[in-house]
Amino acid sequence: MSLTPFENPLFALFEDRAISDLFVPARTLALYNEVEAALVRAAAAEGIVSREAEARVLSVLADFAPDPHRLAEGSRRDGVPIPGYVRALREAVGEPHAGAAHIGSTTQDIMDTARALTLREANNVLARRLASLIAALGTLDDRFGDAPLMGRTRMQAALPITAGHRIAAWRRPLVRQQDRFAAARKSVECLQFGGAVGTRDGWGGQGDAIARRMAETLALAEPGAAWHTERDGIAHYGGWLATTAAALGKFGQDIALMTQQGLGEATVAGGGGSSAMPHKQNPVGAEAMVSLARVTAGHGAALHHAAVAEQERSGIAWAIEWMVLPQLVTATGAALLIAGDLTSAITRLGGPA
Amino acid sequence: MSLTPFENPLFALFEDRAISDLFVPARTLALYNEVEAALVRAAAAEGIVSREAEARVLSVLADFAPDPHRLAEGSRRDGVPIPGYVRALREAVGEPHAGAAHIGSTTQDIMDTARALTLREANNVLARRLASLIAALGTLDDRFGDAPLMGRTRMQAALPITAGHRIAAWRRPLVRQQDRFAAARKSVECLQFGGAVGTRDGWGGQGDAIARRMAETLALAEPGAAWHTERDGIAHYGGWLATTAAALGKFGQDIALMTQQGLGEATVAGGGGSSAMPHKQNPVGAEAMVSLARVTAGHGAALHHAAVAEQERSGIAWAIEWMVLPQLVTATGAALLIAGDLTSAITRLGGPA
Amino acid sequence: MSLTPFENPLFALFEDRAISDLFVPARTLALYNEVEAALVRAAAAEGIVSREAEARVLSVLADFAPDPHRLAEGSRRDGVPIPGYVRALREAVGEPHAGAAHIGSTTQDIMDTARALTLREANNVLARRLASLIAALGTLDDRFGDAPLMGRTRMQAALPITAGHRIAAWRRPLVRQQDRFAAARKSVECLQFGGAVGTRDGWGGQGDAIARRMAETLALAEPGAAWHTERDGIAHYGGWLATTAAALGKFGQDIALMTQQGLGEATVAGGGGSSAMPHKQNPVGAEAMVSLARVTAGHGAALHHAAVAEQERSGIAWAIEWMVLPQLVTATGAALLIAGDLTSAITRLGGPA
Amino acid sequence: MSLTPFENPLFALFEDRAISDLFVPARTLALYNEVEAALVRAAAAEGIVSREAEARVLSVLADFAPDPHRLAEGSRRDGVPIPGYVRALREAVGEPHAGAAHIGSTTQDIMDTARALTLREANNVLARRLASLIAALGTLDDRFGDAPLMGRTRMQAALPITAGHRIAAWRRPLVRQQDRFAAARKSVECLQFGGAVGTRDGWGGQGDAIARRMAETLALAEPGAAWHTERDGIAHYGGWLATTAAALGKFGQDIALMTQQGLGEATVAGGGGSSAMPHKQNPVGAEAMVSLARVTAGHGAALHHAAVAEQERSGIAWAIEWMVLPQLVTATGAALLIAGDLTSAITRLGGPA
Repeated sequence: MSLTPFENPLFALFEDRAISDLFVPARTLALYNEVEAALVRAAAAEGIVSREAEARVLSVLADFAPDPHRLAEGSRRDGVPIPGYVRALREAVGEPHAGAAHIGSTTQDIMDTARALTLREANNVLARRLASLIAALGTLDDRFGDAPLMGRTRMQAALPITAGHRIAAWRRPLVRQQDRFAAARKSVECLQFGGAVGTRDGWGGQGDAIARRMAETLALAEPGAAWHTERDGIAHYGGWLATTAAALGKFGQDIALMTQQGLGEATVAGGGGSSAMPHKQNPVGAEAMVSLARVTAGHGAALHHAAVAEQERSGIAWAIEWMVLPQLVTATGAALLIAGDLTSAITRLGGPA
Repeated sequence: MSLTPFENPLFALFEDRAISDLFVPARTLALYNEVEAALVRAAAAEGIVSREAEARVLSVLADFAPDPHRLAEGSRRDGVPIPGYVRALREAVGEPHAGAAHIGSTTQDIMDTARALTLREANNVLARRLASLIAALGTLDDRFGDAPLMGRTRMQAALPITAGHRIAAWRRPLVRQQDRFAAARKSVECLQFGGAVGTRDGWGGQGDAIARRMAETLALAEPGAAWHTERDGIAHYGGWLATTAAALGKFGQDIALMTQQGLGEATVAGGGGSSAMPHKQNPVGAEAMVSLARVTAGHGAALHHAAVAEQERSGIAWAIEWMVLPQLVTATGAALLIAGDLTSAITRLGGPA
Repeated sequence: MSLTPFENPLFALFEDRAISDLFVPARTLALYNEVEAALVRAAAAEGIVSREAEARVLSVLADFAPDPHRLAEGSRRDGVPIPGYVRALREAVGEPHAGAAHIGSTTQDIMDTARALTLREANNVLARRLASLIAALGTLDDRFGDAPLMGRTRMQAALPITAGHRIAAWRRPLVRQQDRFAAARKSVECLQFGGAVGTRDGWGGQGDAIARRMAETLALAEPGAAWHTERDGIAHYGGWLATTAAALGKFGQDIALMTQQGLGEATVAGGGGSSAMPHKQNPVGAEAMVSLARVTAGHGAALHHAAVAEQERSGIAWAIEWMVLPQLVTATGAALLIAGDLTSAITRLGGPA
Repeated sequence: MSLTPFENPLFALFEDRAISDLFVPARTLALYNEVEAALVRAAAAEGIVSREAEARVLSVLADFAPDPHRLAEGSRRDGVPIPGYVRALREAVGEPHAGAAHIGSTTQDIMDTARALTLREANNVLARRLASLIAALGTLDDRFGDAPLMGRTRMQAALPITAGHRIAAWRRPLVRQQDRFAAARKSVECLQFGGAVGTRDGWGGQGDAIARRMAETLALAEPGAAWHTERDGIAHYGGWLATTAAALGKFGQDIALMTQQGLGEATVAGGGGSSAMPHKQNPVGAEAMVSLARVTAGHGAALHHAAVAEQERSGIAWAIEWMVLPQLVTATGAALLIAGDLTSAITRLGGPA
């Protein structure tokens, strides 16, 4: 509610509920349930747990909502929520089927897979916004593309261009990022499954088969092995987000410069008001896009640090992701949202001021 | 509630409510009221507003709580909450005294000053924790300082030392950071006051006098001029936070290494449990301290970008601070909190495993 | 000769001459000549300059080496070397053909295209090293894959694995990065060509045709438009480099941990000596790989800042690339080099110490 | 010669030989000699080595220049130059006095102390430049302070100010940084002295006494203990550098904006020329100041990572400093140099365009 502008109503320009709501605890817990359900189904299908146990676990998971207070207590002690979640789940399942829940699995299997599901939803939002922004820039070009504009290089007037020439420089990187998105999504929308030390040994030789079934149920890719400490996919995906935000930062920077009095090359409807000077029309969306670009650049770097993950599972490196990735996704989402609004709000581009 | 581990109960190890609660919107709004009250008092004392107007504004501010929905709407449009807040405040004050509220001031005056008050409270917490951690490390030295320990350089056994030698290397940087804290606090616990373009011209020549009065009322330093785009103080303060977190990261890294089986140089009570291997005692606090060091390093850099603030007020640069500073303070606070808990939980250091 | 370990013989472990030599001024100047030659050839083929002028320009370019002192003087004034280089080139060509040199082009066309050529050479080196490292890790697996090893999670002994399981976690990210390299190379190995404001208007309507010819001559991709301020390709490529270095950082971190006395899970031949303790065998290569991962993470972020490039050409954003990209490429190269050496130097992995 | 613009004549605008030359290998080796000389003198004064041995070692050190090829070979193997340097030094000293050279010391004692000497020289340069820049801004204010200027907030014209108001916003942060410099210098201009594991035990109980003598000889502070893995001082100092560069970035950004046609608020003599448009006057120095601010922000963060230094000496963390600190010092120096030149080159500020 407070630490980031993305969830703080005092900074509502930056809010992006469609993305940030995907990360709320209730939603995350529902995904833990979904992943555990996929696991017990797959384990039953492979004969590792009985159909009776499967039914019992699934019936509990259908509306399992562990006590938040106990969960927080467990997480404070264990550093992660899953041990406490599993204790509560197994208590709820009760004997003789308690052991069928979370069978053979490890904390990171559940958390990373749940996050893959979260990211898939977020990525769907990002993909829609990106496509619609690209289309909106096409429309912008239809409206203002032929308007004359002074080309500027190194902050100095250079030679006349058209507004369309500059619009193209905003649009092309987004088209390329759209092309690159398939690979970036593939890097993170995948099942995490390995058990205690990532070997897939904990299921009587059926680890790979269970993984395939889970991946199918959850509609995630099955990478063929656990990736507990192989975080190149996350880093690659984070790079995509930060690069997209940077491309939007260029767009925002240009608009902010174009609206300067003296240049007067753009008008944006509904600019931000000032408490001191009510007449002002501040290009607040354009500015926000630049700010978001700068902040996401740092987040991207943090994910590279998070990829230096020692041994079979790293608490150090993994926790960096928790502190950075939700914000990076949301910041990129917010930048796309703001860019879309800004694009529609442009009422003049180029031409005589 | 979700985007950072600091406010997400699923990641309760990282929670630091004593700090993060300082940043919740209700608290921030109360500080806006406090700053506006100091302003109207000072303006009245300097004869810029009438005593009657002062009384009216103060009576409204006593329990002013603007409609959150309208506030968010305003912030979405204006990029900042103050224009909407001031509109609502002036409506509540009503004529003929509406203009006495926020007189001559600008958004950034209020927000930066309110944040200085927030940081002062946070800094009090940090100072107490730091002092108490330094004391706890002294106690740790009393308990285990003489225990033999293998000195290790470049990850290799080198020559025998004592546990006390290593404890000193955790403690001394904190003592130096404690010494440096006075200057760091002074860099941010100061009044922001300049009006629309930072000139202090908007109060009939009484700008400086009003500033002195406000600073006295709020118990903040009066830097003698507005610092709307002079963010060296914030950058300096951010450096202090990140350096402190880095010093704690070294401590955490050492403990995590010392608890390794095979080295067995430390035992920490109540280590984190595992969902796959209930027997494990993971050094989760120690690991978290390293993670926090890595993340705060990036936050510190973002604040240097935020210091590249163009002209008289920069929406671009300023918004970077909003996205980074609350988390940086909280992350450093969390690192101190965890370090304190860890220090008390150490039941063995050095000596035969 | 001094500012980076990559070129400083006192830090020879980090040297990577095969890469860093690609960036020396003489080599860069030779590439400027090559790009200018491709331009004049293409312009002649399109009838923009006469065959006589082409011949004259090419004959000068064949061994053109401008006075370094004058070049530095020009660069100090102009911020970039090309204006001075072009003045010198045109003087050398002399009238009546001086204008045929650099015809219609702009500084960034030459510098970015020359850099694309540099990166192509560097990328060939990186690709070879990556392939050979992947193969070496295969061999390592052949030699030690079956050796028992204690699996470790969150710095604690967990369950037994094999050395092969850990080797796979070093190898798989590199294989994926190898797969991702084609897209990353494509992002930067392309012609820059646009003229003063990037419109390709300066060649009598033949801009696109000249671009196609130049791209063919230089064996670079022709992206169809100038990308003076569209730096998503550079950012994407930088992300690939930093992600690769991070993957190697994980490998290095693991080896450094495995060589600890007490764990004794690996022996590396020829470890670094100590000036104080001649008996020590420091895992200096493994450590260096971690250091390089941390530093390249920051470089990657800088390239995202460099993508916020205003208007038609940005001196601000572009110069960030100059300060970061050569080092990022070299650091990644050095990490691959060291990783290769380390892999061959491993004489024991897993098994009883 | 190539990897950074600071040493590459093609990017001569960024060159800062007065700083970068301090880091060349020959100079560093001379400082190693100086530190070893201080050590042997102190050890002799404390009776740890004979006067005869002292004389022999000093006579060799007077012009000791180890074979660069062997030194590089050693550094490649050992990861650091000192073991090879000491081997060569002891060979040159010969028996029976070889052991008196580098007595009881360790690699990091020599390298960190030599670097403290380098930084002291660099800091003298920075201090002079900062003082002179502050004075130059005073002169600028004398010349143009009263000129009218449109105050701009959030990229929009706000209310009229004077040029002096903006100049003050460039100058005050530098004055504060000047005040903060004493503490920052103190953090790094100090002796490193601890021996193999930092205990100062290697000199027959005379470690502290030797340290005091060395510090006196070298005119460095004696911090009372080794700080091999206590890098808060470096991080603090790095923060000072990055904050100073950021303050200059704000200055540069403002000038770049002020020189825009349409605003026309400043004229800078001798602006950079363009290869495409000879009439242009690019504000290349102002732009470079912004670029340097962005790059140094990242360097500052790297030094926070370098402070997470495990155990008694960390090859991982320390090497990060080598890759970052020389450039950070040079980049800040270059920013000051360029800022000084820019300030003198301003021929008009504010007033009618």
